[in-house]
Amino acid sequence: MNILLVLRMLSAILLIESASMIPAIAVAMVHGDGDVLPLVFSALIILAVSIPAYLFIRPKDRNLRVREGFVVVALAWILMSAFGALPYVFSGFLPHFYDAFFESVSGFTTTGATVVSNFGYMPHGIAFWRSFTHWVGGMGVLVLTLALLPKLSDHTSHLVRAESPGPSLSKIVPKMGESAKILYMMYLVLTVAEFICLIVAGMNPYDAAIHAMGTAGTGGFSNYGNSIAHFHSVAVEAVMTTFMILFGINFAIYYFLLTRSWKDIRMNEELRWYLGIVFASIFLLTIFLLPYYGSLKESLRYASFQTASIISTSGFATADFDLWPVQAKMLLLLLTFIGSCAGSTAGGMKVIRVVILAKQGKREIRRTFQPRKVQTIRFDGKAVDEVMLHSIAVFGFAYIFLVLAGAFMISLDGKYDLITNFTASLTCISNVGPGFGAVGPAGGFSGYGPFAKVIASFLMLAGRLELYPMLVLLHPKVWSRT
Amino acid sequence: MNILLVLRMLSAILLIESASMIPAIAVAMVHGDGDVLPLVFSALIILAVSIPAYLFIRPKDRNLRVREGFVVVALAWILMSAFGALPYVFSGFLPHFYDAFFESVSGFTTTGATVVSNFGYMPHGIAFWRSFTHWVGGMGVLVLTLALLPKLSDHTSHLVRAESPGPSLSKIVPKMGESAKILYMMYLVLTVAEFICLIVAGMNPYDAAIHAMGTAGTGGFSNYGNSIAHFHSVAVEAVMTTFMILFGINFAIYYFLLTRSWKDIRMNEELRWYLGIVFASIFLLTIFLLPYYGSLKESLRYASFQTASIISTSGFATADFDLWPVQAKMLLLLLTFIGSCAGSTAGGMKVIRVVILAKQGKREIRRTFQPRKVQTIRFDGKAVDEVMLHSIAVFGFAYIFLVLAGAFMISLDGKYDLITNFTASLTCISNVGPGFGAVGPAGGFSGYGPFAKVIASFLMLAGRLELYPMLVLLHPKVWSRT
Repeated sequence: MNILLVLRMLSAILLIESASMIPAIAVAMVHGDGDVLPLVFSALIILAVSIPAYLFIRPKDRNLRVREGFVVVALAWILMSAFGALPYVFSGFLPHFYDAFFESVSGFTTTGATVVSNFGYMPHGIAFWRSFTHWVGGMGVLVLTLALLPKLSDHTSHLVRAESPGPSLSKIVPKMGESAKILYMMYLVLTVAEFICLIVAGMNPYDAAIHAMGTAGTGGFSNYGNSIAHFHSVAVEAVMTTFMILFGINFAIYYFLLTRSWKDIRMNEELRWYLGIVFASIFLLTIFLLPYYGSLKESLRYASFQTASIISTSGFATADFDLWPVQAKMLLLLLTFIGSCAGSTAGGMKVIRVVILAKQGKREIRRTFQPRKVQTIRFDGKAVDEVMLHSIAVFGFAYIFLVLAGAFMISLDGKYDLITNFTASLTCISNVGPGFGAVGPAGGFSGYGPFAKVIASFLMLAGRLELYPMLVLLHPKVWSRT
Repeated sequence: MNILLVLRMLSAILLIESASMIPAIAVAMVHGDGDVLPLVFSALIILAVSIPAYLFIRPKDRNLRVREGFVVVALAWILMSAFGALPYVFSGFLPHFYDAFFESVSGFTTTGATVVSNFGYMPHGIAFWRSFTHWVGGMGVLVLTLALLPKLSDHTSHLVRAESPGPSLSKIVPKMGESAKILYMMYLVLTVAEFICLIVAGMNPYDAAIHAMGTAGTGGFSNYGNSIAHFHSVAVEAVMTTFMILFGINFAIYYFLLTRSWKDIRMNEELRWYLGIVFASIFLLTIFLLPYYGSLKESLRYASFQTASIISTSGFATADFDLWPVQAKMLLLLLTFIGSCAGSTAGGMKVIRVVILAKQGKREIRRTFQPRKVQTIRFDGKAVDEVMLHSIAVFGFAYIFLVLAGAFMISLDGKYDLITNFTASLTCISNVGPGFGAVGPAGGFSGYGPFAKVIASFLMLAGRLELYPMLVLLHPKVWSRT
């Protein structure tokens, strides 16, 4: 383990985190809710830790090996969340560190699950920071770091591989630093576009910024206790539904749009499946909601918003869907597993994996009665390598195993019922935010004890980093010398 | 598709089914509850269908191909369940065919889920038949057929492979017909041993027969509404706990015992994991139940019985565990997934698969940071083939996918909550019997509509036959000519 290189990378990331508090400090200054000092104080502490490390640690060996890449990513996300929790503690917004850490992890991992129960007291700067973590975490902090400091180490693609969602690395252009810059530019443009649309739809600029950042990262934090239901506006819901679906798409698609690579878009099988699932779900959900809302228009409205919100793993709500008919709830539960496209800011298992798993299941059925027939599995028109297929199958099982193991650990808290604990684990790993029962859209995680909150924080991190980086930390061999 | 051969095999199986009603008819005659005629009438109908087919269909090609093996097994189980439902309908015990079919499927698949809500009216012959289907279904109807009619076709190992639980075929001796006979003899001896123990523990011979058959098949039907709680007897519970654990063990182990192949027993990794999980679960469950029951003795008593009952996928109950603390319920939920050993009469994913999946997960974690290191996975001290590993990983995901898809289909019924529908699907696929909520030990499936009952019946069959034989029926290619 090249400890010096790891420390230097971590210090660079914290440096960026400290700088990323500046917008929130500015917001706090404008609104004057008394949260300037807590934010400034937090930024200074992070600087005090990271500047000396960044300046004085000069590793001779700048070769970042795979193992170190994973360790850097996992530790970076933990440290970043821990330091990002300071403003919540200092402002008295969430006085307990485990609460603040949960909220910070939930922000960076773009989960949007909250331990806030009193939305009445939420200073503007703090709320802005809370939603800004969604924006930063969505595209990835290491991606941001590489965009700003491309010469930090060699072989940085290991880092991006560990942080970016999906089974394969989608480099847009050959150079990783360039790719990172292009990704962030497109991300920024799309966020600003939504920000403008939300203002046109009637939001004030502050709310528009909060919700545009929450949508872009597919996070789901709102500054209102009843989320988007607060606005009572079809226009706002239409804008957010559209952008939630857009942010669930692989960002490579937007690059193909820019470069007019129509063929690449047409060949993208995941996009077709994703849009197919979105529209099929809206259709089914509308039917399931008809008896509940009575009118087709209302059913369609709630169905589109909630489908987009859950499949994009944002987790905003316009209704307490925990009260919906059981068919509707079961459909949302399935969408919580699936999530959106690889290479987007969304969580979940990812459409590409679910589709490839389904194809493998179909092949396995056929294999039982035609055992000698060689059957290749194709995706995007190309045969998928058997090793990749195998590793996706293991991932699929590991994902669900972690949901069950997480539910068991959360249950040790002993407070809530089975469905609350099960969906709490699932919604954390899939980075959605709300679940059912006590963690439904009308509730939250505030009722859990510290142990369950720490477990949930770990699950959110594991989900955001696609399981392995966090689990790698627990593997004894990663710390061995050879 | 060799239709003639398929038909001949099916007729042979029905012939055996008709003969297997004789013990129930004898019981009905002794007790005189008016259920002799419904049973005799059912047996005659099955004879009338199967005798002509068996006598006159003489396929020239007696070569049973893999595809036909799977089709025979899948159709055999559906037909057998349909005809086995006749006594319930004719006796007026379950007047609706979909109820009777559900109960019959639940019997043969050794699930033990019930649509019976009124245990007051259960004629002795009918109740005996109901539990006898557990006994026949546990070891497998095709295995029984081959034991009695070994010359029915060539390549009968395809049949046994499709019907017997576990990822690999465990032939005890080279000849399939011989293996089948040995298996059934050991099965009978163990059942009789339990029958005697239960009588010694204070049951009357009739109840002892019912519960010995239910334990042997790891089914779970009882003739009392409150299951084993009816007996208020520590001795009865101790006997049943022991035998439930025993029937969850691979029957090959008993053959090794008979032939004194101690080395084979010592090398059996699955057995060690199985017993490890059983004792670890009893330990944990006892701790979780302490605050509920107050005394260590009571907690241990309920914990041992319920652990054995769920992991062996029997589903007997001595308490309404739906009222237990959430930690305890979550543990039982996990055991419902796992099930017992391959080659036993139990359901679930099987310990061997879960362990191999866990090993694969661990390897995948290590692979992320040591991508070039070749790592073989060992089981029973031998390296497991990569193709087998891959297919187990796909099975693991397919299993849980089917649980979710089944829960969604059952939810279309619209009656119950999420946890009821989810555990209904799970308990059917794992062939356990009770779930949580409305399908908990104090409830049952009687409240569901016909559609949900048919889906649940399909799930029980899919679970008993380890997914693929039932799914094969839905694959268009299986019916094609080439």
